[in-house]
Amino acid sequence: MSLDPRHREDYLEFLRFASVSTDLDHAEATRACAEWLRNKLKAIGLETTLHETKGQPALIGRTPPDPEKKTVLIYGHYDVQPPDPVDLWTHPPFEPHIENGLVYARGATDNKGQIFAHLIGLEQQLAGGRELPVNVAVLIEGEEEIGSPNLLPLIEDKKDELACDVVVISDTSMVAEGVPTFTYGLRGICGVNVDVTGPSKDLHSGFYGGAVMNPVTALARMIASLHDDDESVAVKGFYDNVQELAEWERKAWARLPAGDATLKAESGAPRIVGEVGYTGLECVWGRPTCELNGFYGGYQGPGGKTVLPSRAHAKITCRLVPEQDPKAITVLLSDHLKQNAPPGVKVEITPGHGGRAYFVDPNVGYGKAAQEALRETFDGADPALIREGGSIPIVCDFQDVLGADTLLLGLALPGCNMHSPDESFPLAHLELGAELNATLLAKIAAVEPVTETSGK
Amino acid sequence: MSLDPRHREDYLEFLRFASVSTDLDHAEATRACAEWLRNKLKAIGLETTLHETKGQPALIGRTPPDPEKKTVLIYGHYDVQPPDPVDLWTHPPFEPHIENGLVYARGATDNKGQIFAHLIGLEQQLAGGRELPVNVAVLIEGEEEIGSPNLLPLIEDKKDELACDVVVISDTSMVAEGVPTFTYGLRGICGVNVDVTGPSKDLHSGFYGGAVMNPVTALARMIASLHDDDESVAVKGFYDNVQELAEWERKAWARLPAGDATLKAESGAPRIVGEVGYTGLECVWGRPTCELNGFYGGYQGPGGKTVLPSRAHAKITCRLVPEQDPKAITVLLSDHLKQNAPPGVKVEITPGHGGRAYFVDPNVGYGKAAQEALRETFDGADPALIREGGSIPIVCDFQDVLGADTLLLGLALPGCNMHSPDESFPLAHLELGAELNATLLAKIAAVEPVTETSGK
Repeated sequence: MSLDPRHREDYLEFLRFASVSTDLDHAEATRACAEWLRNKLKAIGLETTLHETKGQPALIGRTPPDPEKKTVLIYGHYDVQPPDPVDLWTHPPFEPHIENGLVYARGATDNKGQIFAHLIGLEQQLAGGRELPVNVAVLIEGEEEIGSPNLLPLIEDKKDELACDVVVISDTSMVAEGVPTFTYGLRGICGVNVDVTGPSKDLHSGFYGGAVMNPVTALARMIASLHDDDESVAVKGFYDNVQELAEWERKAWARLPAGDATLKAESGAPRIVGEVGYTGLECVWGRPTCELNGFYGGYQGPGGKTVLPSRAHAKITCRLVPEQDPKAITVLLSDHLKQNAPPGVKVEITPGHGGRAYFVDPNVGYGKAAQEALRETFDGADPALIREGGSIPIVCDFQDVLGADTLLLGLALPGCNMHSPDESFPLAHLELGAELNATLLAKIAAVEPVTETSGK
Repeated sequence: MSLDPRHREDYLEFLRFASVSTDLDHAEATRACAEWLRNKLKAIGLETTLHETKGQPALIGRTPPDPEKKTVLIYGHYDVQPPDPVDLWTHPPFEPHIENGLVYARGATDNKGQIFAHLIGLEQQLAGGRELPVNVAVLIEGEEEIGSPNLLPLIEDKKDELACDVVVISDTSMVAEGVPTFTYGLRGICGVNVDVTGPSKDLHSGFYGGAVMNPVTALARMIASLHDDDESVAVKGFYDNVQELAEWERKAWARLPAGDATLKAESGAPRIVGEVGYTGLECVWGRPTCELNGFYGGYQGPGGKTVLPSRAHAKITCRLVPEQDPKAITVLLSDHLKQNAPPGVKVEITPGHGGRAYFVDPNVGYGKAAQEALRETFDGADPALIREGGSIPIVCDFQDVLGADTLLLGLALPGCNMHSPDESFPLAHLELGAELNATLLAKIAAVEPVTETSGK
């Protein structure tokens, strides 16, 4: 099925909206994008409502519900990352430029390209008054890039409209070009902010240094205590509920066209350093971490200033794997930090929000259907079965509120510059995505209605 | 000898100049202050020259040299710290306000009050064409508060004019009101800036966390390695040349009306924490330190950002005691940091400027003369013999260029708010200082010309 030029033009029009959710200067463009999308969903043949939220509106489009059919919820977002730094773009970020089959624009991949491929698929299947093999609901929000602050209330409010058997999201990456990729796990997250106070004001390091505990030194010691020599996390109880990697996963990942060399090249780190006994990919996809996101205290300007600082601050987040509990880990981490604080300082710990890891067995039920759809769409190529190290909190919300697992079928290429200048998406992936949508809906329709979804 | 009202008016006039050396907006007031001071020194009867430098001018005033007499160099500075935050002052900082015998103004103590007391003393002694018991040279600079960047070249240039047997500086503190204080030691200083680089850019902590060494964590470990459990510095060789505290010093300091309780109250620290086996005062005055002046890396704004930072930075200074060599300690510290860096990061170390510690035996030669002068001036009270934890680099310059030791006879009271709002100086200390000047010059004149100065 080749791409109708009309679909391509529509996609480029979609990309021209500067729907930057984090920037109020773009509020008008963001709303215009939502309204354009409402008309698009209606034109495809979906019953569509634009829902106001406290922030940017969200859209829900549905086929007329048939109680005999399964229901698939397709989720995506129409908002994009800011294009800054704009001067690093080869072409203006909101004036799509096509070169060698790639479309360059902010949002080309994330997520306009990937969600639009689904819409093309639906439009093709519904053309001429035909019906889909499943009921479809489409949920497209406008605040994903700022953490979806208003999405959970909407899902809770529209729980009945969004009720579904399974969720489909295309907002993840392929391990390499031409390798269909099914993401069956994501890490969770929890974190704390740490404030350490020593003296009540910044002191002259000559007049007091030696008799007063330095809060920067104190906090550094606390941080140094977080890991053992083998780079495992030294917090007591941290690994108690960790679900070990399965043998099949480790074997499958070892065969992927990605690994330590890729991680080293992408990150620019001098070498890959992870928990002893695990490859880089295993560390990122299947092992928990305790990571310093920021540390500051004392003088930070040019040159020197002989101050003994009053305070020091750190921001720490842990990436979690199944079955770690974010709240329990937050408590363990906080206790560890307090217990490892030297004398002479006051330690305050502020817990952050958390989200648990996501994991669904890729080899049963809808996971199998997803794999089959990927294989057929990519000319028989075996799908890579991967986890990702990031967190997509909405996936757990779908489990909690709708009781549905999510199939993560990413079409983003490594090097597509999501969140960076010169973001791109292959036009061919619009076609592939549309085809994948059709195949996937058919495969899902064919899944036997036993309680095979693994959900946790 | 009671204070002539004319001296008091002169002092208040001196305080009205906003001679803030760090602030170019005050350049005019600073120069006007220098010119006023030139006239003052001339009026006292000193041959006076205003010397231009690359920054603010310095003044040298001298009595006609008599080769039969010893020569004393009195050093001070006419520039002051910025008055900020101005709104915390009870009265405008450059409109001196007198209340309960205290003069409130920026510079009241540091250093206008303390140097002016010497000038009053000289004026009183020279009145009516009398002669001093020694030759006196007065050196008053205008850039002390910004690190005296142009003073060393001037001293080197005017080496002959400034040639002296001993230097006198009143720019230090008394341990308590009514306790004459002789400071016979100062700590030295050296330091490094440390830059740690991990990945080539800030990374998504989900996509790479676990496989890449976090530079903030790495630097925290390096810092944690700097001290042993007993809070001594763990850098190999750090204590090799350290001159241990003498028994008489420890005993004398234990009797002072100052100590851990004072340090705790002044610093606002939850408790005093220092090297095991030493009191707080011993740690500050007589033991070397390794202090973190600043640390920063990663995200520092509100809330959180799940970044794995590319870089982390620390500013470290060591306070040194006799006979530590700043250059040698800088090398030991740098080597230690490099050796304790975890794998997967690049470490760059930039050495800063250093200065050695100062120490002169208070119980021989001019030191003894200073003690006698203090005792007489303070009605027979025993002088407190102390060291200070800060560094006054000019003191080592005087040793190096002029071959002369320095007598540090401070008249600043604890709580006088040097460098803070509501700085004050007791009018009574102008009198005391003038009297001290006269007594000191007489005692110095009487010192037997044997090679008793201890110098290092």
